Amino acid sequence: MRIALLGGTGDIGQGLALRWGFDTDHELLVGSRDPERAREMADEYETELDSRGVETEIKGFENAMAADRADVVVASVPAYHLVDTVEAVADRLDEDTILVTPAVGMKRDESGFHYNRPGAGSVAALAAEATPEEVSLVGAFHNLPAGGLANLDREFEWDTLVFGDDEDAKGIVADLAEGIEGLRALDVGGLENAAEVEAVTPLLINVAMENDGLHDLGVRFE
Amino acid sequence: MRIALLGGTGDIGQGLALRWGFDTDHELLVGSRDPERAREMADEYETELDSRGVETEIKGFENAMAADRADVVVASVPAYHLVDTVEAVADRLDEDTILVTPAVGMKRDESGFHYNRPGAGSVAALAAEATPEEVSLVGAFHNLPAGGLANLDREFEWDTLVFGDDEDAKGIVADLAEGIEGLRALDVGGLENAAEVEAVTPLLINVAMENDGLHDLGVRFE
Repeated sequence: MRIALLGGTGDIGQGLALRWGFDTDHELLVGSRDPERAREMADEYETELDSRGVETEIKGFENAMAADRADVVVASVPAYHLVDTVEAVADRLDEDTILVTPAVGMKRDESGFHYNRPGAGSVAALAAEATPEEVSLVGAFHNLPAGGLANLDREFEWDTLVFGDDEDAKGIVADLAEGIEGLRALDVGGLENAAEVEAVTPLLINVAMENDGLHDLGVRFE
Repeated sequence: MRIALLGGTGDIGQGLALRWGFDTDHELLVGSRDPERAREMADEYETELDSRGVETEIKGFENAMAADRADVVVASVPAYHLVDTVEAVADRLDEDTILVTPAVGMKRDESGFHYNRPGAGSVAALAAEATPEEVSLVGAFHNLPAGGLANLDREFEWDTLVFGDDEDAKGIVADLAEGIEGLRALDVGGLENAAEVEAVTPLLINVAMENDGLHDLGVRFE
């Protein structure tokens, strides 16, 4: 499968690129608003994978070019860039493209991190408003610690919660997720169930901040 | 320690009573609005524990009588009864009492369960408004599956997230939690961090509903 990571130069994009590069044969395209930066980071990921004995080609493109070429487009950008990013690539998506959002809106105050729920109901619902009707939108990869994901020495048993209104598209994204060793994909229903998934990320950060010895936390349902 | 379980005839109260009865020597008081019902369920818990070789005395009382006698009062009632229940026992609590809320507000629609966030910011914040100023309020035991907790054959490794503005009281509740085998208490900061904790429970239910073979789910941060 050909996967574009929009904003793939950022922390969660880096983690997904390295894990898919290491654990799977998917073709990876790193997207960025700055194509030069995309190519630089794609080279960095190749080098990191090569140092671990994995030879793979990762290409860098401007976001819209990456989206245009991909079967699955992961908008791995911060929540406040999500709508802009989706709008910028919308005319490159078609009915065969799956758009994935791992974005979470957070705010911080003196007590910790909090879920910043948009008026639309969830960050995913905001993204849905900007997504062309024929494109399937799936939520996944929200509650993964970027640092732990990008560190290929770190082993884990984490769950990722997958939601969306297109069952086939959800299944494809779940399979992509489970291509990453140690990652289990759990179905959590439709787009209407997004908010509770997105709200787990600030909780993970609060737990990591308050408990010595815990950091880069993921979550496991059992 | 002497622990009162207000609404201790309900599902989460039953689970906590059986686990503390089985794993610890704490003195347990089952509270209910109906003292007769409290005594019946206390007898049931004793019988269940006795059948597993644990002889212990569990007493049943009307909620206020139970609260009056306890060091730690767990308001194990549904969210919509929480404020009433706290108000009904408020004059039996003093500066040495710790009040614990595991309550979560949920609503259900066709897509699944959702966190029903009160205007006060969280269910715990609502409880705080009804709690006398000199009493320490701690949140804990939110994201435990009542059925799994009450089934003493079920082994688990679950986390419970503990929040509150009184560090000493949080520590005492964390110790009580960790008296239950397989339960780890994680600090998640102050009362301001309650909403994200409470929002995990509808998520657990959605995950259990959408995935065959998963039920009575707890959560583990790792």
